[in-house]
Amino acid sequence: MSKFINEKFTSLEEYTPGEQPQDKKYIKLNTNESPYPPSKAVVKAVSKAEIKDLRLYCDPECKKLKLAMAKLFGVNGENIFLSNGSDDILNFAFMAYGQKGAAYPDITYGFYSVFAELHGVESEVIPLRDDFTIDICEYKNKNKLIVIANPNAPTGIALSLEEIEEIVKANPDSVVLIDEAYVDFGGESCYKLTAKYDNLLCVGTFSKSRSLAGGRLGFAIANERLIADLEKIKYSTNPYNINRLTQVVGTATINDNDYYLKNCEKIIKTREWVTKELESLRFFVLPSKANFIFAKSDKISGLKLYEELKEKGVLVRHFEKDRIKDFNRITIGTDKEMKTLIEKIKEIL
Amino acid sequence: MSKFINEKFTSLEEYTPGEQPQDKKYIKLNTNESPYPPSKAVVKAVSKAEIKDLRLYCDPECKKLKLAMAKLFGVNGENIFLSNGSDDILNFAFMAYGQKGAAYPDITYGFYSVFAELHGVESEVIPLRDDFTIDICEYKNKNKLIVIANPNAPTGIALSLEEIEEIVKANPDSVVLIDEAYVDFGGESCYKLTAKYDNLLCVGTFSKSRSLAGGRLGFAIANERLIADLEKIKYSTNPYNINRLTQVVGTATINDNDYYLKNCEKIIKTREWVTKELESLRFFVLPSKANFIFAKSDKISGLKLYEELKEKGVLVRHFEKDRIKDFNRITIGTDKEMKTLIEKIKEIL
Repeated sequence: MSKFINEKFTSLEEYTPGEQPQDKKYIKLNTNESPYPPSKAVVKAVSKAEIKDLRLYCDPECKKLKLAMAKLFGVNGENIFLSNGSDDILNFAFMAYGQKGAAYPDITYGFYSVFAELHGVESEVIPLRDDFTIDICEYKNKNKLIVIANPNAPTGIALSLEEIEEIVKANPDSVVLIDEAYVDFGGESCYKLTAKYDNLLCVGTFSKSRSLAGGRLGFAIANERLIADLEKIKYSTNPYNINRLTQVVGTATINDNDYYLKNCEKIIKTREWVTKELESLRFFVLPSKANFIFAKSDKISGLKLYEELKEKGVLVRHFEKDRIKDFNRITIGTDKEMKTLIEKIKEIL
Repeated sequence: MSKFINEKFTSLEEYTPGEQPQDKKYIKLNTNESPYPPSKAVVKAVSKAEIKDLRLYCDPECKKLKLAMAKLFGVNGENIFLSNGSDDILNFAFMAYGQKGAAYPDITYGFYSVFAELHGVESEVIPLRDDFTIDICEYKNKNKLIVIANPNAPTGIALSLEEIEEIVKANPDSVVLIDEAYVDFGGESCYKLTAKYDNLLCVGTFSKSRSLAGGRLGFAIANERLIADLEKIKYSTNPYNINRLTQVVGTATINDNDYYLKNCEKIIKTREWVTKELESLRFFVLPSKANFIFAKSDKISGLKLYEELKEKGVLVRHFEKDRIKDFNRITIGTDKEMKTLIEKIKEIL
């Protein structure tokens, strides 16, 4: 750090992304990417002409992509916000709606606390129950920004749509942000409720179910006034932040939705048998509705399993946090990758 | 805007990007894009395999691209920061270094005042001289963030390296940001001075001379401690914000530097004859070192010329600001495009 930096940032601890090793071919089950590539139509959409057009600025309004999404979700364009990954939206929400503080679970996406610290937002960190579920009563009448990942990460446990609606209803004076990064793997999206509640910000991403982690595309669906807030901040920070090729592949992705739905089905199936396999090895596996599972064994520590798997060429994600340090978060890969995982775990045990 | 937004943003006026019309084929001379496409090597670099790899997160450290840039500029990787367009860096700089206020010219890139307002940074707006040059004496011993576009926009007028160094030397306790978006068209970059001054932040972009406006890639060269500040903010907002394909095309761009240098030479030549042509039509043209010229005529108002050119299919940029409302900013296109521009102007006059 330099001596010039605003002192409010000197104690800021940045987010630590999952490892992206470049040195060795791992079976990469550590950052919840899709094991399936973008569809053929997406690959085809990036034509030579599109690449040559990179000399021109992208459309800051992302009109084509917004239109495709509005059609898919059955909402209006003014109810959709697009961003450079969903982290952007989370950042904007803490900036715009955190003035009375923010509440989120103790075990959840690690970036929430970073955004809170960055923007000087006072955090109320609410512990999950002992079984790692969210007690929705703890999120009622808060009158502050509420941020809930649904399904939650790294637990994979989902709230029902009714539970989400109860939280939204019980906080009419503040924004409730539901981070649905993993919703397409068995959860229920709340986006339709945004027509009914002006305080609900439903956030999604193309990084997981839509095989575009490296393309950087996130979105929010909400009441048009919330969307206008987000647009105002986007146009005051980085209006062109979704580049031309991302807009092109994003549009092709939406237009090829069935391919991605089928991939989600495959991933759910794989998740179910991997869960059973691990349970038969006496692992404790939380009930996941995401494209990962969160599992621990009483035969080996979380850290040791992570290390030994890495040694054997399989990368999973381990968190140091006390309450979850016995666990590892394991992304659901292809059947073949997961068979290898199970074999390696058997060798280790 | 919603009723939920932090009231400090209610009066915020966002930046207005140049028009990106989708409805009609214009000769587009309004947003300072390059008229020349990315090089063949860049087009080739976006292979099918790269597109398929979009399922994976990008490298948040952008190692390959950083290495290529470090080699080209003769600096270390730790002296380079990469971002989603240079707007990102400007935003971060106002956030990180604006605590004692910021000083910048009255006529310059319109986004500076937006960043200042967004982050509650008190602005000292220093008028350009009557001839639209910067009086460097006005920027000495300021002890606040100094932001200067060099060459300046929309004037195109450049300061010399010696003048930049005087400003940097005279502000040892604050950051001096030199925004070099247009430096490759005849200006002198200050990046080598960053080895000598720990308060100099030299900011560049791939959007103009490197034909990648739609790719979104900006960079800063500075002392490693300033770079560490920027990295901290990036990892606290959006660590993955430079997507895979942008990293790929950015690296190919750097490795094909000669192609871009030649394009810059062509643009400079075109600029010189267009300037002469306009002067022969009794236009007053500021001496530009950028890929645009700033020109006015006493025969027609700035707004009217803009409107009539648009009517005839040529888009230039007009600003409402009082001091410059007689002018238009005209991007330098290909020779053919500029011949058409001159013809249309003759028709209008």
